Amino acid sequence: MTSPAPGAPIVVSMGDPAGVGPETIARAWDARVERALPPFVAVGDCRAIERVWQGPLQPITDLGAVARVFPDALPVLTVEDAGEIVPGTPDADGARCALHALELACGLVRSGAGRALVTGPVSKAQLYDIGFTHPGQTEFVAERCGIARDNAVMMLAGPGLRVVPMTTHVPLAEVPSLLTVELIVAKARATARGLTRNFGIECPRLAFAGLNPHAGESGAIGREEIEVFAPAIEQLLAEGIDARGPFAADTMFHDRARAGYDAALCGYHDQALVPIKTLYFDDGVNMTLGLPIVRTSPDHGTAFGIAGTGAAHPGAMIAAIAMADAAATHRARCQQGA
Amino acid sequence: MTSPAPGAPIVVSMGDPAGVGPETIARAWDARVERALPPFVAVGDCRAIERVWQGPLQPITDLGAVARVFPDALPVLTVEDAGEIVPGTPDADGARCALHALELACGLVRSGAGRALVTGPVSKAQLYDIGFTHPGQTEFVAERCGIARDNAVMMLAGPGLRVVPMTTHVPLAEVPSLLTVELIVAKARATARGLTRNFGIECPRLAFAGLNPHAGESGAIGREEIEVFAPAIEQLLAEGIDARGPFAADTMFHDRARAGYDAALCGYHDQALVPIKTLYFDDGVNMTLGLPIVRTSPDHGTAFGIAGTGAAHPGAMIAAIAMADAAATHRARCQQGA
Repeated sequence: MTSPAPGAPIVVSMGDPAGVGPETIARAWDARVERALPPFVAVGDCRAIERVWQGPLQPITDLGAVARVFPDALPVLTVEDAGEIVPGTPDADGARCALHALELACGLVRSGAGRALVTGPVSKAQLYDIGFTHPGQTEFVAERCGIARDNAVMMLAGPGLRVVPMTTHVPLAEVPSLLTVELIVAKARATARGLTRNFGIECPRLAFAGLNPHAGESGAIGREEIEVFAPAIEQLLAEGIDARGPFAADTMFHDRARAGYDAALCGYHDQALVPIKTLYFDDGVNMTLGLPIVRTSPDHGTAFGIAGTGAAHPGAMIAAIAMADAAATHRARCQQGA
Repeated sequence: MTSPAPGAPIVVSMGDPAGVGPETIARAWDARVERALPPFVAVGDCRAIERVWQGPLQPITDLGAVARVFPDALPVLTVEDAGEIVPGTPDADGARCALHALELACGLVRSGAGRALVTGPVSKAQLYDIGFTHPGQTEFVAERCGIARDNAVMMLAGPGLRVVPMTTHVPLAEVPSLLTVELIVAKARATARGLTRNFGIECPRLAFAGLNPHAGESGAIGREEIEVFAPAIEQLLAEGIDARGPFAADTMFHDRARAGYDAALCGYHDQALVPIKTLYFDDGVNMTLGLPIVRTSPDHGTAFGIAGTGAAHPGAMIAAIAMADAAATHRARCQQGA
């Protein structure tokens, strides 16, 4: 892992060529001036973009060309021929293209040639079919960066809310037994560090959502708040981390409540994802905390059902690029200042 | 249970006299013209309102006086002396006053003297201390109406969303085993009937939220969607009820998704309450479906911490009165038409 070169571009892996990745990246380029986006390069197959977008493309082979090309055309680093590309119809060639794009994009950022990594949406089912053994892109990137899977923390962010699901893609019935003091402490530490490192928040305020209705009502509706959350929070406070709660989840996400913390740590997938997607369905960003590199992605899937129709909203891709830029800029400033 | 008399008023029980019930009722009266609220009467203790509001009160003893009094003063039916009233400091006298107000208000609506019941917020802890044996006001009202507790369905509603939690105040760990085909079918039937009866929606569209992340991803992340939700939905469809899903909960509550159904049926408390309170924290209404009378309440508690300070938002009380009025008007129209 090398520090990014000055002026290095953001590197955006295209995701599945049959999904909405190509068109949202292209439309983010359309919005580059209006949204003040930094130079970025798409990694994937030019033809996937040409199928869904009429704007100017410029194939490149060297990231050094991005800054020069970017004002007038979308620079694309082509990894391989993705075979026949039909928007909305994924296949194995496309999955291989997506995987190679991810691998190259990740390597470019790890080497310092790219400033930050933005990953377009992939189809897990398609990737599994071609032998991909990681649960998702996050775990792949973590492994490539030499980080243990559990130390890479998924954070979802919108303009006025950041949430961290402390457990993710597990059945709800398993959640209570997975939420241990150790897990909560580890997730909170990584979140606090990540907020400082990527957003410059010196002493991040972490608010925990209780697991049970009304955060258990003093034990009347479940005891996890008393037996698990309370000792975890005590330990975090002893480490100097501003940990609060656990609060009743239903009162944590309205306008005034959100102003009271920098990130909400939630017990399970839907407790975190329901509020963020209710509020920011079109521009939510997934950022992985705990990595040596900056990595974001739009908080939506391949959306094969609307790929190529023009219905895909580029807001999340734009927000993912902007957040990656801000975080990389912040990290660079801190390293210079240190 | 008698049909309401023509021109009968809405009856609003004041809730705990030390909570925000009195002031939100008074401020709803302040907004009666602007919000086009129908005549209503507060049931409780006049002094509780006088402590927190400078407007005109008119003690009455007969609901027949409400229509005449209402334009110029807030009519109050006093049930008993609530003892010393200190906003923010509940006591047993206040709890007794709240309970008697609830009982009288409920009786007035059941008898037809009132058109609909709106209940102000009570302190369950205070009520339990004076011997109240129901879990909450909803169960009390259901029993007084001769309805089995399980057939009274709690629905939370804001301007653009209605949600029904199919389980409520139970630990999250117990939820998976409580969600049976029978429970889901019963809740859906009551919801469909309630939407038709109170809102005039002829064939209500019910959307189920899956229990697990991504609604279980075809069984990969939990099997309740396949083993419990699917057969329940099949049964409902066979009965002619428009039941849909189960859907990934996190994608159900943004603007466009909400337009696709009339009510979302959720597996547990926070799955339903997080989206409604995130969107409509200040004006959410709790309506009980399955009762012979119309009953609503503001979707907030006593808020003892801000009672008497002027910080309480009357939006939910205003919305609860307006929704009770609309539902009672709809029911009366259907009965006349029948």
